[in-house]
Amino acid sequence: MAETLFQLEQTIAARRAADPATSYVARLFGKGRAKIAQKVGEEAVEAVIAAMVGDRAGLVSESADLLFHLAILLANEGLGFADVMTELERREGISGIAEKASRTEQD
Amino acid sequence: MAETLFQLEQTIAARRAADPATSYVARLFGKGRAKIAQKVGEEAVEAVIAAMVGDRAGLVSESADLLFHLAILLANEGLGFADVMTELERREGISGIAEKASRTEQD
Amino acid sequence: MAETLFQLEQTIAARRAADPATSYVARLFGKGRAKIAQKVGEEAVEAVIAAMVGDRAGLVSESADLLFHLAILLANEGLGFADVMTELERREGISGIAEKASRTEQD
Amino acid sequence: MAETLFQLEQTIAARRAADPATSYVARLFGKGRAKIAQKVGEEAVEAVIAAMVGDRAGLVSESADLLFHLAILLANEGLGFADVMTELERREGISGIAEKASRTEQD
Repeated sequence: MAETLFQLEQTIAARRAADPATSYVARLFGKGRAKIAQKVGEEAVEAVIAAMVGDRAGLVSESADLLFHLAILLANEGLGFADVMTELERREGISGIAEKASRTEQD
Repeated sequence: MAETLFQLEQTIAARRAADPATSYVARLFGKGRAKIAQKVGEEAVEAVIAAMVGDRAGLVSESADLLFHLAILLANEGLGFADVMTELERREGISGIAEKASRTEQD
Repeated sequence: MAETLFQLEQTIAARRAADPATSYVARLFGKGRAKIAQKVGEEAVEAVIAAMVGDRAGLVSESADLLFHLAILLANEGLGFADVMTELERREGISGIAEKASRTEQD
Repeated sequence: MAETLFQLEQTIAARRAADPATSYVARLFGKGRAKIAQKVGEEAVEAVIAAMVGDRAGLVSESADLLFHLAILLANEGLGFADVMTELERREGISGIAEKASRTEQD
C-alpha cells in the first residue's frame, strides 16, 4: 500500500508540471486551493452515498477518487501522505500508551 | 506508509470487538453504516475548511481523522485500503498506457 | 420569500412531469434519491467554499443551488419546505418559552 | 413560509448580540466564518444521510438545522435569505423566458 500511495504522489507531482491542455492534474492545480478542496468535499459525498446504497464497488472507486484528490490538496499545501501517516502513528503511540494506562478513555 | 495504514486497520479490527464502554471504535461500529458514513462526510468537511484557512497542521490532523473514519467505513462494508490501492494501481496502469498512446486524454 | 419558495416548489413539481430530454429537474428525479442527495451534498460544499473565499455573490448563487436541490430532495420524499418551516416554528416556540424560563439554556 | 424565514433571521440577529454564555448563536458567530461554514457542511451531510436511510422526520429536522445554519452563514457575510430569493426569482424569470423560446435547454 505504501508503494501505491507513494507512486500516486509521484504521478501527481509529475503531472502537476504537465500541459494543462492534456493533464487533469495540471488543470486542477491551476484552478487553485478552493477548487481542489471542493473536489475533496464532493468525492467524500460520493463515497458516503455509495456506502449508503451498499454499492461496494462504488465505495472502492469513490474512495480511490477521494485519496487521489486528497493527495492533490495535500501537495498544494506543501504536504503529503507521509505527514498524515506520521500523525496517525503519533496517535497510535498515544493510544497504545493510553490503552495500557486506562481502559476507560475515549480511543 | 503501508505499515501505518495496515497497522491502522489492525487496530480498528481489534477495537471493533472491544467493549463499547471503553472504545470509540466499538461504539461507532455499533451505531452502524449511517453514523460511520456521516463521520466520513464531516471529517472531509473539516479537512476542506482547514485547507481553506491555510491551517496546515489542521489539514494534516483532519486528513488523519478522514483516513481513520474511511478505514472504519470500508471495514464496515467488508472492504479495506488494499481494495482502494488495487483500484488506484489499476488506474495508474490504464493512465500509463493512455499516456503513451495519446497526450490529449483527460488524465 | 414565501412566494419564492412556493413558486420554486411549483416549478419543480411541474417540471418533474416534463420530458427528461428537455428538463434537468425531470432527469434528476429520474436518477433517484442517491443522485439527488449527492447534489445537495455537493451544493453545500460549494456554498461552504464560496463563504470561505469571501465570495459573497458566489455564496448567494450556491445557496440558491442548495435550496433548489433541497426542494427536489424533499419533494422526492413526499415532503416540502412547509414541513421544514413547521419544524422551525416549533423550535422557535420551544426556544421562546425556554428563553423566558431560563437564560442558561443552549439555544 | 416567508414569515418563518424572516422570523428565523430576526431571532438570529437578536441572539447574535446575546451573551455567548447563554446563546449558541452568539457563540457560533464568535467562533467565526470557518466554524459556521463547517456547521453548514455537517448539517448538509446529516440531511443527505437522513434522506438515504428514508428517515423522513430526520430529513425535515436536518433540513431545519441546515436552513438555521445557512441563515447564520449568510448573516455572517452581511447577506440574508432575501438575497437568495432574489437570485431564485431571477433564475425563474430567465428560465420562464427560456422555456418559451426553446424546449431543448438545460433547465
